Amino acid sequence: MPQTYTDLNPSPRLLLGPGPSAVPPRVLRAMATPLLGYMDPEFLVLLDETQALLRETFQTRNELTLPISATGMAGMETILSNLLEPGDKLLVCAAGFFGGRLEEVALRHGAEVTKIEKPWGEAFAPEEIEAALKKSAAKVVAIVHAETSTGALQPMEGIGDVVHRHGALLVMDCVTSLGGVPVKLDEWGVDAAYSGTQKCLGGPPGLAPVSLSDRAREVIRNRKRKTEVWYFDLELLAKYWGPERMYHHTVSATMVYALREGLRLVMEEGLEARWERHRANAEYLWNGLAELDLVPYVAPAYRLPTLTTVRVPDGVDEAKTRTRLRDEYHIEVGAGLGPLKGKVWRVGLMGYASQRENVTLLLGALREILR
Amino acid sequence: MPQTYTDLNPSPRLLLGPGPSAVPPRVLRAMATPLLGYMDPEFLVLLDETQALLRETFQTRNELTLPISATGMAGMETILSNLLEPGDKLLVCAAGFFGGRLEEVALRHGAEVTKIEKPWGEAFAPEEIEAALKKSAAKVVAIVHAETSTGALQPMEGIGDVVHRHGALLVMDCVTSLGGVPVKLDEWGVDAAYSGTQKCLGGPPGLAPVSLSDRAREVIRNRKRKTEVWYFDLELLAKYWGPERMYHHTVSATMVYALREGLRLVMEEGLEARWERHRANAEYLWNGLAELDLVPYVAPAYRLPTLTTVRVPDGVDEAKTRTRLRDEYHIEVGAGLGPLKGKVWRVGLMGYASQRENVTLLLGALREILR
Repeated sequence: MPQTYTDLNPSPRLLLGPGPSAVPPRVLRAMATPLLGYMDPEFLVLLDETQALLRETFQTRNELTLPISATGMAGMETILSNLLEPGDKLLVCAAGFFGGRLEEVALRHGAEVTKIEKPWGEAFAPEEIEAALKKSAAKVVAIVHAETSTGALQPMEGIGDVVHRHGALLVMDCVTSLGGVPVKLDEWGVDAAYSGTQKCLGGPPGLAPVSLSDRAREVIRNRKRKTEVWYFDLELLAKYWGPERMYHHTVSATMVYALREGLRLVMEEGLEARWERHRANAEYLWNGLAELDLVPYVAPAYRLPTLTTVRVPDGVDEAKTRTRLRDEYHIEVGAGLGPLKGKVWRVGLMGYASQRENVTLLLGALREILR
Repeated sequence: MPQTYTDLNPSPRLLLGPGPSAVPPRVLRAMATPLLGYMDPEFLVLLDETQALLRETFQTRNELTLPISATGMAGMETILSNLLEPGDKLLVCAAGFFGGRLEEVALRHGAEVTKIEKPWGEAFAPEEIEAALKKSAAKVVAIVHAETSTGALQPMEGIGDVVHRHGALLVMDCVTSLGGVPVKLDEWGVDAAYSGTQKCLGGPPGLAPVSLSDRAREVIRNRKRKTEVWYFDLELLAKYWGPERMYHHTVSATMVYALREGLRLVMEEGLEARWERHRANAEYLWNGLAELDLVPYVAPAYRLPTLTTVRVPDGVDEAKTRTRLRDEYHIEVGAGLGPLKGKVWRVGLMGYASQRENVTLLLGALREILR
């Protein structure tokens, strides 16, 4: 007799980890909508609208703005594999796990990687990037705007100028910032950015929005050989998302419904109001943590409103605390990655999850567990 | 003032094209379920169950059976990029668009591709593959089980023996067959297969189930260099889907919910009963088409129950007929690809869409439009 599988009935979870984040009811309902085919004229309108909404969210006029049909990490690999050819030089600014990922992925595509590193949780000054570029020129400079492993926010002002002065392209990871804190591609001179739907945009994991400047696009157009990854080939993807509507792969109506609805919610709230909400709820969290003698890992100047790493106090069992939060309060927070494993909890207040009452609940639960 | 975007309210569509196919209500509802984190113990159980369900559906004991977090085409690229290293020899058997795709994608990864071709809509005999292998050895032989561009079904009996006798691995595209017609990986000696969720499995596009034999896995383990695509690296993916649970990317709870629910429906119906339903509804379609003097493109011996290409009669406007089906009857059928563009319609009866009343409606609509 075949094994039987129970009805889908997951326990409730308040997702306050590093992602996925809580998905708002309107987005969940959108995903229960019957599908349109990928060439249906009504679907093509939804694609155009989604791209327009993404441009507004990224604060850019970049024509080449679309979601990759995969998760955020595929956004990173799409950008790197399209911009870099074997032997091309990449400068990575790494102060956390995802900075390291940039190197790891770029090496797969044959790039020559130079890495400047800072202790986890810190940020780079434009002068430090300039010094590195003076020592060794690069075709592309990659930096993480919001480091999900540490909860640090990289100030972006001035970096685009430095990178462009040295003839390079600026790539920015904004997986954990887009829709939660200011992201301004054009103002900052970012040439290529990638994000994910499951953090501050209020969607499920499944799409990776990317945006590339005309300058970055020109670099791709002038490649000596085609990019290695057919599925991530932006030249081919642009032919489906653009007016040619050439079939490449079957873009998921369900995922586009979800992203479009999440972005509609962003626009209804307004970007400024949304950034302010994330900031206010993060400050409420930070103040509440202080009352519990809990200390964020990152210094106030670089602290990311959408994700806070909290030092585990001496004598407290990191994993057991997370388990009790989950089993007794139905709250998910994240564990530390790499060198921070066992040393921090990661608390995300992203998108729909960034609500005052969620912070009140988390603080109350921590107060009870840690007393 | 910012542009406003209307509420999501797509017109009804009976999806009888080449995919996506109609998604059953239970799967739609599953996707409206709040998400679990990718390391939640409850989610890890769902991952294990999904893998077990996939193994049953693929008719295999392959341990390395999991869905790639992207669409069906990513399944193809995952298999090719993991099995092939630059300079490795691939024999492609092509009798349609997706046979050509195999070559196109493999070339990106530096494979030396030999292609044997037959007219679109035909199938290969084991002897033909053997003759090609005698002329030129190959590391991998790739073939399309159900060619979505033509509606032809490739008989698989005997091919595994030939391929293995020549020391090669057998790769099979079963995007349009898995869950709709018999697919028996172990019995047929298939070393690596890939599919998509949006055809006969009753899911939305968004995941690409793959399954690899231990022999194929050994080839991957013994690669001289890492595979080019980090996101598709099966060694890393196996570490998340296997007992190590090592973070690679954020697997989408929503998509896993959908796939698991679709596979539960497959098992509740039973594979044999499901194959028989697809066969019976296809025969009902073929008989009905004959009454309308409409002729399938593929000879009866190789005709695929899940997708039928129908020749457009002389004097009939192919595109206008499709548009009328869509606008007046809310039915989607597909256009021809490549050399069949303008010459055929593609009618899919896949998964939930394979129902007698859907065929009755389509035939009635065609009768009215073409009279």
